[in-house]
Amino acid sequence: MPTFADPKIDGARVIADLTTLRRMGAFKTGVHKPTLSPPHVQSLEWLAEALPGAGLTPTIDGIANVLGVSSKNGPKLLAGSHLESQNEAGWLDGPLGVIYALEAARVINTNPDFAGAVEVAAWCDEEGHFGNFLGSASYVGDIKDAELDKATDRTDGRRLRDALAAAGYGGRPRVVVEKGRHIGYLEAHIEQGDWLEANALQIGVVRSIVAIWQFKIVIDGMQNHAGTTRMAIRRDAGLAAVKLLADIDQQFPKAIGPRSVWTTGRITLEPGAPSIIPGRAEILFQFRDDDPVVLDRLEALLREIAAKHAKAGPCPIDVIKLRGSTPARMDERFQAAFENAAKVHAGGRSVRMPSGAGHDAQVLAAVIPAGMLFVPSIGGISHHWTENTSDADIIAGAQVFASACAALLAGVG
Amino acid sequence: MPTFADPKIDGARVIADLTTLRRMGAFKTGVHKPTLSPPHVQSLEWLAEALPGAGLTPTIDGIANVLGVSSKNGPKLLAGSHLESQNEAGWLDGPLGVIYALEAARVINTNPDFAGAVEVAAWCDEEGHFGNFLGSASYVGDIKDAELDKATDRTDGRRLRDALAAAGYGGRPRVVVEKGRHIGYLEAHIEQGDWLEANALQIGVVRSIVAIWQFKIVIDGMQNHAGTTRMAIRRDAGLAAVKLLADIDQQFPKAIGPRSVWTTGRITLEPGAPSIIPGRAEILFQFRDDDPVVLDRLEALLREIAAKHAKAGPCPIDVIKLRGSTPARMDERFQAAFENAAKVHAGGRSVRMPSGAGHDAQVLAAVIPAGMLFVPSIGGISHHWTENTSDADIIAGAQVFASACAALLAGVG
Repeated sequence: MPTFADPKIDGARVIADLTTLRRMGAFKTGVHKPTLSPPHVQSLEWLAEALPGAGLTPTIDGIANVLGVSSKNGPKLLAGSHLESQNEAGWLDGPLGVIYALEAARVINTNPDFAGAVEVAAWCDEEGHFGNFLGSASYVGDIKDAELDKATDRTDGRRLRDALAAAGYGGRPRVVVEKGRHIGYLEAHIEQGDWLEANALQIGVVRSIVAIWQFKIVIDGMQNHAGTTRMAIRRDAGLAAVKLLADIDQQFPKAIGPRSVWTTGRITLEPGAPSIIPGRAEILFQFRDDDPVVLDRLEALLREIAAKHAKAGPCPIDVIKLRGSTPARMDERFQAAFENAAKVHAGGRSVRMPSGAGHDAQVLAAVIPAGMLFVPSIGGISHHWTENTSDADIIAGAQVFASACAALLAGVG
Repeated sequence: MPTFADPKIDGARVIADLTTLRRMGAFKTGVHKPTLSPPHVQSLEWLAEALPGAGLTPTIDGIANVLGVSSKNGPKLLAGSHLESQNEAGWLDGPLGVIYALEAARVINTNPDFAGAVEVAAWCDEEGHFGNFLGSASYVGDIKDAELDKATDRTDGRRLRDALAAAGYGGRPRVVVEKGRHIGYLEAHIEQGDWLEANALQIGVVRSIVAIWQFKIVIDGMQNHAGTTRMAIRRDAGLAAVKLLADIDQQFPKAIGPRSVWTTGRITLEPGAPSIIPGRAEILFQFRDDDPVVLDRLEALLREIAAKHAKAGPCPIDVIKLRGSTPARMDERFQAAFENAAKVHAGGRSVRMPSGAGHDAQVLAAVIPAGMLFVPSIGGISHHWTENTSDADIIAGAQVFASACAALLAGVG
């Protein structure tokens, strides 16, 4: 591989920045920082104030995206993640990627030894308090004002427009992607699983972000008295749900790919009383994979199992697809850049892997090349305030990220 | 069998009385008559006004039980049921037994050809809006004032004391059973199942009221991200619940009695979100039988299955018994009296059977001999506004009920 100037990040500064953000909305050892809550707004303003130190001009736009723009000549990479959190969740989910981008910008943008610049973004509401990737979707031009007018917080019902106005961002224009400006988008994130830790690896190079196929399965039974209705004549929607899900658990392993996952998140029986045979069952079921062939195969199997159970009776079963995204492939050159940097700065302890969770990178990948880097999650814990990553892994990840940025801007790799 | 004067009921009057009660709180073809709602209070007052026509002195006491007392010499039977309904439910569940008692009292009490008298009761809140058989339990001395002070309506939270005061019954004494006054208690009810209809029978002679054993099954898992957590390391409480319930469905038929029923009324997965692996599952599970040996066997099997699943892992399972009543045996002589009357007035188309539902008769059975008679439910439908029984079956049942009362009062059978 050709040589290029390799930037040296400041590990202590990365940890200090993350710790500063952790104090805003602290909850136990994590944070409670819902979208546009005071600690989230405080975090956005902190980032905007930090961007000039990385040679970037800050903007907070009308959807509360923070964007740092460089006037440096040469190619430009866009990099970032998000600053809000799930309710009562971890300190690194989001901020890690923003601070990696900020640190890469600091070491690259203000140093004439390095070609081009890293521009920094913090996308608003990746965690979906008000919608679905609202900030990054707005940036790629996928959000209409009417959609924002209707959006409300899923926890407390607050209107997004009111929350934006209260933060001081009401009425501002929304910044959209400038075609051809960036060679691509890079995002770092905690893995949120235990694959890296279990295999003593330090860097995950994301090859794709899985698609989530979400289904509502509705089973119609006949509500009746749980004491007087003989077993033989019952049409128990709850029992039909149990048999269906037990069968899926048996059948799915035959059709999955090596990293497929499937989950029943909710079972609702109506009316849900101890002495009434359920007249209706509703199941929320999803599976995820990054291979379209596997996704199609699993949907076909789900429908086949449901049809078999409905035919056997006594309850009709309806399988309704709620969501069927496509997997987002990460750019091959970006994967190689992360891998090469991991050889130098992480002893080659990296692996290519799918991302089982959704990220803003999948939204950006629709308009520009995108790449993602993972660092290990201790115990695989995620979306919980105990979420953590060792300082050593955080610092190694920041170095790999900055090195890969510099290599890509230099046209190396 | 020895002869006795057989009373002749007025079928048209029975239908007319039931129709009058149906108009109070009418809902579609049924009624919506929660405990102490205006239509329920109107029904209680209507009954109190009707009792003198049956030679009875009416009282509505401090728990809104309506009681009709006779001053006629000779033995006395207590008979009745309840006048409130489940929400948006049927017109016969309760009123049928009250009107049968009223009609038997009319034809027996005022006629010197018949020995003794039928005293009529309408027990308040059999349907459990405020508690558990509050009216009949009060009558047998099982309710303390402090319990009534705390009781609230499970639908709207209204305090029982406020509801009693609003109806005009606040501060009244509660009437309790006078030891030795009655030779026993009789109650008629719709079957609420389809056994009589399916077998072309007209009268069900209840041999016992089943016990309900209710359990809460709690499964502890580990809440985690549904995208990033590999299948192999999951501790999915929802999946554990599904497997447990599917196994119960397989195993229970080996241990049941001929009329056992078992029901899962509710499954709650926490947090219940589409993309989160459930960290906790709670199941409401019950079984019913009238044989204590079968009940014990089913509980042992339930605990054995749960222990097996807990041991296989990955989730601990806790089986908590919420309710474990004993079956209530109906008096053998009362069963024979119903059966004999059915020979004369229902062409012998009767069967002895357990009651799968709870009734006030089980509360009275703890202090005096008790008997119950069922009439067919069309389609086995119950606790629904479409609940119904043919006029012919209603009238035949009233005749069998009155004849059995007369025979028992005459000391025949």
